[in-house]
Amino acid sequence: MRIIVIGGTAAGPKAASRAKRLNQGAEVILIQKAPELSMASCGYPYYVSGGVSSRDQLLATPAGVVRDPLFFAGAKGVKALVNTEATAVDAKAKTVTFHRAGGKPETLDYDKLILCTGSTPRIPPFPGVGLEGVFTLHSMSDADILRSVGAAAAGKHAVIAGGGLIGMETCEALAACGMTVTVVEKLPHILAFLDPELSMLVENHARAKGAQVITGMGVAGFEGTDGRVSGVRLEDGRTLPCHLAVVALGVSPNVQLAREAGLAIGATGGIAVDKHMRTCDPDIYAAGDCVEVSCRLTGTKTLAPYGDLANLEGRVAGENAALGDLAIFPGTIHSGICKVFDFAAGSTGLSERKAREAGYDVVCAVNASPDKPGFMGAKLLISKMVADAGTGRILGFQCVGAGEVNRQVAEAAMAVMAGMTVEEACMADLPYAPPFSLAIDHFIATAHILDNKMRGLYEGASSQEVKQGIDDGVESYFLDVRGPGEFEEMRLGIGETLIPLGQLRNRLDELPADKSARIVAYCKVSMRGYEAQRVLQAKGYDNVVVMEGGIMAWPFAREK
Amino acid sequence: MRIIVIGGTAAGPKAASRAKRLNQGAEVILIQKAPELSMASCGYPYYVSGGVSSRDQLLATPAGVVRDPLFFAGAKGVKALVNTEATAVDAKAKTVTFHRAGGKPETLDYDKLILCTGSTPRIPPFPGVGLEGVFTLHSMSDADILRSVGAAAAGKHAVIAGGGLIGMETCEALAACGMTVTVVEKLPHILAFLDPELSMLVENHARAKGAQVITGMGVAGFEGTDGRVSGVRLEDGRTLPCHLAVVALGVSPNVQLAREAGLAIGATGGIAVDKHMRTCDPDIYAAGDCVEVSCRLTGTKTLAPYGDLANLEGRVAGENAALGDLAIFPGTIHSGICKVFDFAAGSTGLSERKAREAGYDVVCAVNASPDKPGFMGAKLLISKMVADAGTGRILGFQCVGAGEVNRQVAEAAMAVMAGMTVEEACMADLPYAPPFSLAIDHFIATAHILDNKMRGLYEGASSQEVKQGIDDGVESYFLDVRGPGEFEEMRLGIGETLIPLGQLRNRLDELPADKSARIVAYCKVSMRGYEAQRVLQAKGYDNVVVMEGGIMAWPFAREK
Repeated sequence: MRIIVIGGTAAGPKAASRAKRLNQGAEVILIQKAPELSMASCGYPYYVSGGVSSRDQLLATPAGVVRDPLFFAGAKGVKALVNTEATAVDAKAKTVTFHRAGGKPETLDYDKLILCTGSTPRIPPFPGVGLEGVFTLHSMSDADILRSVGAAAAGKHAVIAGGGLIGMETCEALAACGMTVTVVEKLPHILAFLDPELSMLVENHARAKGAQVITGMGVAGFEGTDGRVSGVRLEDGRTLPCHLAVVALGVSPNVQLAREAGLAIGATGGIAVDKHMRTCDPDIYAAGDCVEVSCRLTGTKTLAPYGDLANLEGRVAGENAALGDLAIFPGTIHSGICKVFDFAAGSTGLSERKAREAGYDVVCAVNASPDKPGFMGAKLLISKMVADAGTGRILGFQCVGAGEVNRQVAEAAMAVMAGMTVEEACMADLPYAPPFSLAIDHFIATAHILDNKMRGLYEGASSQEVKQGIDDGVESYFLDVRGPGEFEEMRLGIGETLIPLGQLRNRLDELPADKSARIVAYCKVSMRGYEAQRVLQAKGYDNVVVMEGGIMAWPFAREK
Repeated sequence: MRIIVIGGTAAGPKAASRAKRLNQGAEVILIQKAPELSMASCGYPYYVSGGVSSRDQLLATPAGVVRDPLFFAGAKGVKALVNTEATAVDAKAKTVTFHRAGGKPETLDYDKLILCTGSTPRIPPFPGVGLEGVFTLHSMSDADILRSVGAAAAGKHAVIAGGGLIGMETCEALAACGMTVTVVEKLPHILAFLDPELSMLVENHARAKGAQVITGMGVAGFEGTDGRVSGVRLEDGRTLPCHLAVVALGVSPNVQLAREAGLAIGATGGIAVDKHMRTCDPDIYAAGDCVEVSCRLTGTKTLAPYGDLANLEGRVAGENAALGDLAIFPGTIHSGICKVFDFAAGSTGLSERKAREAGYDVVCAVNASPDKPGFMGAKLLISKMVADAGTGRILGFQCVGAGEVNRQVAEAAMAVMAGMTVEEACMADLPYAPPFSLAIDHFIATAHILDNKMRGLYEGASSQEVKQGIDDGVESYFLDVRGPGEFEEMRLGIGETLIPLGQLRNRLDELPADKSARIVAYCKVSMRGYEAQRVLQAKGYDNVVVMEGGIMAWPFAREK
């Protein structure tokens, strides 16, 4: 029995290793176009920044052994061919044609084939895109080049087209090289997996760390002199001068081999596979960036080019190629996280926007609160929970901030996968000790807010809604219920009145006489804002909303 | 309507605040024996150590306002009486009798009563337990005293009776004061929520940080001169000289008021409540350390005196007292975490021991692997997953190490709560980026090992089993499949043979000729050990086991 795996970055090596492990009698051959194998490609930005000191760290096992063909032969029993390009698959004859660097075409037959052909950066046909100094960050060689160019460009300017995960990670990497960096994003906001309330906070943070972030503006082309990029032209005609530019506009699945072999390609553009990662050909599996997978929540097909999923898909494909279709890949819930300077930004499940697009009747809440007690060095987290109004099922959770986003999104991902409801999340029993979390974990507190909202015990408005109201001239009484010291230090300046919560019950005469007047109550994070709402509602004010997340979740300009 | 809450640490303030928030028309009175309110009692060890600089940090809101009666009146609308002891409840007349410091008894009637009377440190009637210098760490005043005594005792010796959560946190706190500390635990191992494989690793770590840990040995009494403790006598007759001693042998629920009021007390000794946190009296609720709650997994009643649960229980009791029995507390899954020097140790669900006691047919796996990629500064985690053999349901998960235990146990807690199976955990879609986790998250990798074991694709033995085999003289061939450099640096010295995995396929002739000979394969973490097992099994060796977690999970003495 011979199993051939095409592609050697993430899904391929995993599939090959798993297949061999489960079927030691099989001959497993891994065909890899690049010179390297099993690269930690998600680590490229940290290599570009210099944070990762040597290239080998991205290529070696924890024991320090580089994962080259010798390693794969000895440790994994897998025959790996590098610098080797597969050029054709004959699904009928069950053969793969390939050629080694500078070699003639060779053909091998297979019993089972696994396609892990990966993806390619999406590069629109911009004028000047071929100029020297216009890069992508996708391959090990991309990373090598950008690292050496970045290291020599301190003080110079870089423009990054695209404010997604890779764009923002590359922004941080080049800033770490000492460059000044501008990110240009065509969508209204960066990090499209976040809703605007949260992505704007990340934009503000990136700006505070010295990056420029231009949103709602596409790149129109690149300008250059002597074949070298000198500027990025935006769709509004402006040109941003630059020393180098990076195109980070996402990736497209590599499906040419599959298509030419007659395999079905899905509507998303990825290779179509079933839950066993099997293509329409019973002897051909596919895994990694080149396939489309199911969203577990909506059932729709989606591209999910993430390193962790590539490994899981590869594991399933490898097992099934070796043993028959036993293993199942259940799909994605779009969990992701990235570091943006001192912030992390993560998300799992559906954003509000995605959930509405999928037809859900959506309820949401925004929460700003620390990750642990103040006396343990708390840092702030701002989160948004999205749920289905009818069933209470949690559809998604997003979290950004300087605090420990990691734990929050990981536990939320489990909740989303399990179909947990908001009510269940309210009573989650999570590990607690002061060095690690609050007694009421941030995720649980977010569920408490949303549960209160769903039960009519809390009327909330997002910072976006409040700002929209101001812009639209909606008459409102803005009530800041913090202390005078806090007000002196920082305030919105939207015409608000300060009445500290502790005095509110005795100063009701300062509020609008009309009990139907719209009152927007808030504090630093809107815990006290919520108390104020309850107090006022009990006094007959029937149009009081809490600005969710308070000042900490306000992404717009402040008076101070 | 009047709601009286007795107890002002965690559950009480939460219940009172929630009740008032939901029913602004109610008069809510909080009766508190101590001078402080709403103390962050889980933070006491970090106050004793000096890590938390001021007492107010444990007592103040994030905005820096001390949660005193003035705060509760203004911000929460709750009337809080401190230094006030409730002495009797007349459930028939619906009255509470109490007296303020130095005052005469007063009586108030209530519509609803919430008992949050907390717990008291368990102090066996040891000889000498009343000596000066024998402390507990339970109240704010305990913390004040221990902080001042500890700060003045650098270089001196402390003995802690009890190696549970509080014992180990206090050990670290006093060590941070510069004391040398000995922990004495009567059970075979510290931190009883862990199985021995993991608790021994924490013991080793505490020893490496300079603490002494004596296990399997109870305290028999205290010795002293001039009324002051000078030593702790152990059950074997030894005396450990000491400057101070701390009794940390757990807590007992305070149920005297409830019992005298005729309320039902459960078999565990805690106040019996239903899922609404209601006692057998329809107008009396109870929450926090004083109640017994249900284990969500086994349905049995249990004491769960944890700060996070106290808050959740208080929230439910407060809501139900205010609005009627709407809210439900679903019970505990025993999630917990603590910091022990540079390690964290956490657990959720059932340990192997607890699961066996509950009658489950248990399967387990131990995994040692980093928390993130090596190039991002990985730290090690050692985990154990416990599942029900029949259904595959994950019953519990424990994790210790210098790595990010917090995320692991939090996501595991969600999985346990949701009834997730090992198979489902194998394909979890969790947030991944190199600064935060491995592409295959540690928890998922643990599930992979257990899934392989359950399907007969992996034969494992714990370090305990291997050690037992050595002690019992079971003949085994110990096969270390790491590299020579690693072997030179660190090795077990149990008679093992080194054959690097990469050479194994070509050196089979060095193995025992008898293919039924017992072979124990391992490496640093036993990934390579597993590869070796698969290779040998394919060659006809039918008695090969992997030592789970490899050398990193070996808690016994090593040759080097």
